[in-house]
Parts: sequence; structure tokens; C-alpha cells
Amino acid sequence: MSETLSGRVAELGYTLPDPSSPAANYVPWVRSGNLIFISGQVPQKDGQCVYVGRLGDDVDVETGQKAAQLCALNILAHLSGAVNDDLSQVVRCVRLGGFVNAAPGFDKQPLVINGASDLMVEVLGDKGRHSRAAVGVSSLPRNAAVEVDAVFEVK
Amino acid sequence: MSETLSGRVAELGYTLPDPSSPAANYVPWVRSGNLIFISGQVPQKDGQCVYVGRLGDDVDVETGQKAAQLCALNILAHLSGAVNDDLSQVVRCVRLGGFVNAAPGFDKQPLVINGASDLMVEVLGDKGRHSRAAVGVSSLPRNAAVEVDAVFEVK
Amino acid sequence: MSETLSGRVAELGYTLPDPSSPAANYVPWVRSGNLIFISGQVPQKDGQCVYVGRLGDDVDVETGQKAAQLCALNILAHLSGAVNDDLSQVVRCVRLGGFVNAAPGFDKQPLVINGASDLMVEVLGDKGRHSRAAVGVSSLPRNAAVEVDAVFEVK
Repeated sequence: MSETLSGRVAELGYTLPDPSSPAANYVPWVRSGNLIFISGQVPQKDGQCVYVGRLGDDVDVETGQKAAQLCALNILAHLSGAVNDDLSQVVRCVRLGGFVNAAPGFDKQPLVINGASDLMVEVLGDKGRHSRAAVGVSSLPRNAAVEVDAVFEVK
Repeated sequence: MSETLSGRVAELGYTLPDPSSPAANYVPWVRSGNLIFISGQVPQKDGQCVYVGRLGDDVDVETGQKAAQLCALNILAHLSGAVNDDLSQVVRCVRLGGFVNAAPGFDKQPLVINGASDLMVEVLGDKGRHSRAAVGVSSLPRNAAVEVDAVFEVK
Repeated sequence: MSETLSGRVAELGYTLPDPSSPAANYVPWVRSGNLIFISGQVPQKDGQCVYVGRLGDDVDVETGQKAAQLCALNILAHLSGAVNDDLSQVVRCVRLGGFVNAAPGFDKQPLVINGASDLMVEVLGDKGRHSRAAVGVSSLPRNAAVEVDAVFEVK
């Protein structure tokens, strides 16, 4: 395994997006003790929200999974910043919170959020196995299809 | 009080469900330091989601409370696994996150989630008194009426 | 800066609401280690939920921001109780969870929740800079326009 988080992601054929800068009075991540709390990420790349719309309506599950994966890559981009890209500092992914922009009656939130969960395990191995909650919400910032936030434990 | 969590639950006339195994790359709970993060639980028993539908639509508040109680029993089943069923290891319930599958305008989320909150206090006494958030969501996995996640402090 | 949290808030021209007492088996805040978990707050003053309704429908963004600010003041009222109003005990705001009562397609959750984020930084300075998630939900307790919960680190 690569010793850097960005290197590990690259080995797998992915690219960490440029970390977004929140245009507001909040920050991408906060460290408290050994926990890193990462702000909710939408599926953003080069400043654009790539996946928009609503599951159970105009977005299908496979597209939702890609959206969740891109949220997870944005999470890892911020985690990389939090640990100076040093993969050895990452103890584990503690929790993912998955919010799916979803129509009433949509029931495949777990499948959608697997797009983020699978990436965590692909990148971090057993350290990527996390607790999570997946729910359907009525709307999301920038009309994103998915938003994911995270808590990590670090050394 | 019984010394085991399952025993304590049984004393009160409830039964811990068989803990669900997530069919994905996440786990029912993660320990970080003295905190246990428990994944969002739907009102599941014997592999079936028992309470489905939407509050403010086809599910009434009383049924929603039963759903929340069953979510809480599933949470305790996983907590039991996390502490080897040793009740003395449980310091307290720190937080419940209550997600109610709810129609626009529904405003009784607190009453619904009390089904989970009351069970925590019934089982754990003062250690069961927690912080919480209760919100209405547009849809939930398996069309569950309620989903609840949790954070506990343990020894 | 004032040495009390209530004094600091008053210096800025705001007033901490009387802290609400949850009418249920949960509590306004729980301390675990150095973290304070604060229950979800609606925009309440003198026992009334002041801002009700749905963004993208009958509530505009500016009103939503005022609602989020009032949620944040309620959060600070409980934080004040948790630290005996001693501002020096507050290490930082770790996380805000922002839930906006929002119609499908509404995409300005970040602007709305800035009403809470800006207040945190106004009151706490750099210690107020937090991670956050902002999502749109289908409904909220008491038909509130916004609900916000929080995690703080204290000494």
C-alpha cells in the first residue's frame, strides 16, 4: 500500500478532487481529540456539482452510487488535508452519514450509499469499515443527488 | 437489575432481536475510544421490516412509537454485542438520532421518537437519558416508518 | 470579551433564550469526555416556535436564516448551562447539524444554515468555526422551519 492517502487512492485508479473551500463560516473538518469530523460533502468536481436530482424520480440507483462515491472521494480529500496525506495516521473510518435526495417511497438508500461505503473499504481496507446511517431527504444543497458526512479516528 | 443487558431487557418483558448483519461494507457498530457508534436501525425483527409507511399519511403516531421502540431494541442488541452483554460496561446513552418517514407538515416527530427514548430510560435508568435530534425525512430504507442511530459511552 | 457566555452574547446585542426543558425522556445535552452533545433545537422563544413552515414554499431564505440563528441561540443557552456560563471552558464548536424544512428541489440549505454558523463565529470567534452538514427534510417538530443540533469540545 502507498504511504500517502492520495497515492493509495491513485493506485486504485481514482483521483482525489481538489478539496472544496466552504464559502461560509464553517470549515471542511474539525479535529477534537482523536476524532476528525468532516463536513457534509456533495458530489463535486472542479467546483461543479456533478450529480443532481432526485432518486426515485430522475436519478437511478447506479447514478446515485456514483454520486455517493464522489462524495466519499471529497471526504478523503479533506481527510488527506487533515492528516497531511499520511495514511499511517488514519486509524479508521468511524461513521458515515448518508443523505439521499429521494422521492417519497424510495427505499434503496442503502444501495446508493454503498457507493461511498465500498470506496472507503477499497481505499482503507478493514480500517474503512464504518457505522452508518442512510436516509432519504426532501432536498439537498445545489440539488445534489447525495450528501455524505463522516467521522474518522486518527492517531 | 440484571447484570447482562439481554437479561435486563428480558426482565422488562422485551426481547432483543437477533442482531442484523449489514449486507454491505459497513458494520453495526464501531468503537472509538469510549464511544460506540451504532448504525441506523430500522424496525426489524426476524429479518423483516415490521413497520413500513409514512407518518402523517398511512402510519399513526402510536404505530410510529412502536416502530421507534423496535429500532431501539435493535440498537440495544448491537450494544449488547459491543460490550459482550455486560451491562456494567455501559456508561450512558449519549445521543439518539431519530429519522421519521413523514409527510410534509407532520409535526409529531418528538412523540414518535419517544418510543425509542422511553425504552432507553426503562432499560438503562438515568444512564439512558440522552441528547437527541428528531426530524422528518422523505423516505427510509425498506420503506421503514422510523430509523434510529445511536452513540453510547462505555467503560 | 466577556468572561461569561451569556455576557458575550449580550455584548453582541442578542439574548440567550430561556433554555427549553424537553418534555420527554431525553435531555438538552450530554457530556462524554470533552464533548458536549446538544439536542436538536427548533427556533423557540418563550415556549413558542417562532418560525414555522417550509423553505421553497411559504418561508423565504432570509426568514430561514433568522430561524437558524434562533436555533443557534438556543444551542448556546444549553451550552451555557453545560459549562456554568464559563466561556473559558469552551474549546470550540466541533459540528453543527442543520435540518431545513424544505420542499423538493430547494437548494439553498447552506445559505439558511449560515444563520446559525455566522452566529457561532460572531460569538466564539475562531473557536466557533465548525464542521457541518446541511440537508432538507420533509418535516420538523412543531412545523419548525429549521432544526440544528451541535457538538462542542470543552475543557
